[in-house]
Amino acid sequence: MSKSGLLKKTVRLVKRASRFMRDENFSVAEKGSAINIVTTADTSIQSYLQKHLIAMLPGSTFFGEEEQRGQEKSEFLWIVDPIDGTMNFARGIADCAISVALLQNNEPVLGVVYSLRKKELFTAEKEGGAYLNGRRITVSDKPFSDGLFCTAFSLYQKEHAAPCISLLTDVYHQCNDFRRFGTCALELCYLAAGRCDLYFEIRVYPWDHAAAGLILREAGGFISSLGGEPLSYDLLTPLIAANTRENFDRLVQKVSQHIPEITYQREF
Amino acid sequence: MSKSGLLKKTVRLVKRASRFMRDENFSVAEKGSAINIVTTADTSIQSYLQKHLIAMLPGSTFFGEEEQRGQEKSEFLWIVDPIDGTMNFARGIADCAISVALLQNNEPVLGVVYSLRKKELFTAEKEGGAYLNGRRITVSDKPFSDGLFCTAFSLYQKEHAAPCISLLTDVYHQCNDFRRFGTCALELCYLAAGRCDLYFEIRVYPWDHAAAGLILREAGGFISSLGGEPLSYDLLTPLIAANTRENFDRLVQKVSQHIPEITYQREF
Repeated sequence: MSKSGLLKKTVRLVKRASRFMRDENFSVAEKGSAINIVTTADTSIQSYLQKHLIAMLPGSTFFGEEEQRGQEKSEFLWIVDPIDGTMNFARGIADCAISVALLQNNEPVLGVVYSLRKKELFTAEKEGGAYLNGRRITVSDKPFSDGLFCTAFSLYQKEHAAPCISLLTDVYHQCNDFRRFGTCALELCYLAAGRCDLYFEIRVYPWDHAAAGLILREAGGFISSLGGEPLSYDLLTPLIAANTRENFDRLVQKVSQHIPEITYQREF
Repeated sequence: MSKSGLLKKTVRLVKRASRFMRDENFSVAEKGSAINIVTTADTSIQSYLQKHLIAMLPGSTFFGEEEQRGQEKSEFLWIVDPIDGTMNFARGIADCAISVALLQNNEPVLGVVYSLRKKELFTAEKEGGAYLNGRRITVSDKPFSDGLFCTAFSLYQKEHAAPCISLLTDVYHQCNDFRRFGTCALELCYLAAGRCDLYFEIRVYPWDHAAAGLILREAGGFISSLGGEPLSYDLLTPLIAANTRENFDRLVQKVSQHIPEITYQREF
């Protein structure tokens, strides 16, 4: 199948899966705490996508937020977050999305992030550019001083909040303002679309960034782990992103001043 | 004119005014800094509403964000923010809205907050309940520990950020998570609709809260200045809001521990 054919079919499956987000009668369960939740919509979407994505690309493997990773290795791996921003979804906030990435030999080659409530579909293929509802998008050219900075504070392990708050305090005084919409995948897409300019989070999973990271790079943006190191698709990792090389380098530098290098880059 | 007739007519005018937000060719000017901006859409909306709201209610007076307050006193006063969340509007972020309040003898009796991009219309009349797109809304009953806390850091005077960050740090460790959508009026409406639960901002203008504050109270929520004091419609003021009496009292208490009482409650 051609890459573009695969993208079209993936988009179709994602839109079909999003019907589970229309059902207002979902139920909520906790995953260890009231902060980390899963809804029946998450599990329905993941089951649907797991079945149909693998059927679409025989031999591919799959892992998603709502399931432990299997042991299989293969050339093609789907990484799925059935709902990025589950708390927003459960609270009726629009900023939540289905995120689907396809990795070939451990490198993202296709990314789809779809927000049903916002009617926004972000897509990218490797070396094919990034799109929002079919229109090409690019990052902004705002300088750091005009930048909007999206960030979060280690939500599931609040003992790591202090260095994140220290970083925000520093960046806030040198940029325009901060935002916290509560969804990593969509915020990286907003960065790709030129709506914001800087991003840091101390602790993200592969399903948070695998699709949106490709979309951001294809929109001209920059994204890495600590020190500009490549992001891992196996590890829980810090994430730094920005619109321009200059802002990215400055943010990497600031992160190194505030965030300890240890402890966060680990398996989950 | 009956109150409900007035609400319907106000909504109609607000929706008509929102056409100026459709024009993608707006231009941006700074109001003292790159952080405080105004667009041609703001000024067009304000001019339109000023003319038509006064014509609809002869004898009423008007003030809005993009104009200094006149000296006239009257029984009926319109308070308008042509675009709450102008930076979001200029950056293509959906969270921005037209806010219109009608005060009778210095007390809000009608509030309309309309987000064109989100297709969300929040309305309230005094003692008539609060509505989102015609459906009754109420605040959540989440306890403090499950609460989503919306806040900001004295954007136009960043020298006051430190106590705001200190408050956020304290509240963050006792609630669920924080959000910063970048629009006071809409965030108060989100609180009214049960999407979030706690709000603090050190420095808001009457046009930020006059309409949304009524909507929030009519949805069962609580809103005040420091120490639970009533909000002023003449002064730049701190703003505390919450879904329940218990959470409100707890947040008022926390604010008193972090935010100095002086300097913020002043004329602008």
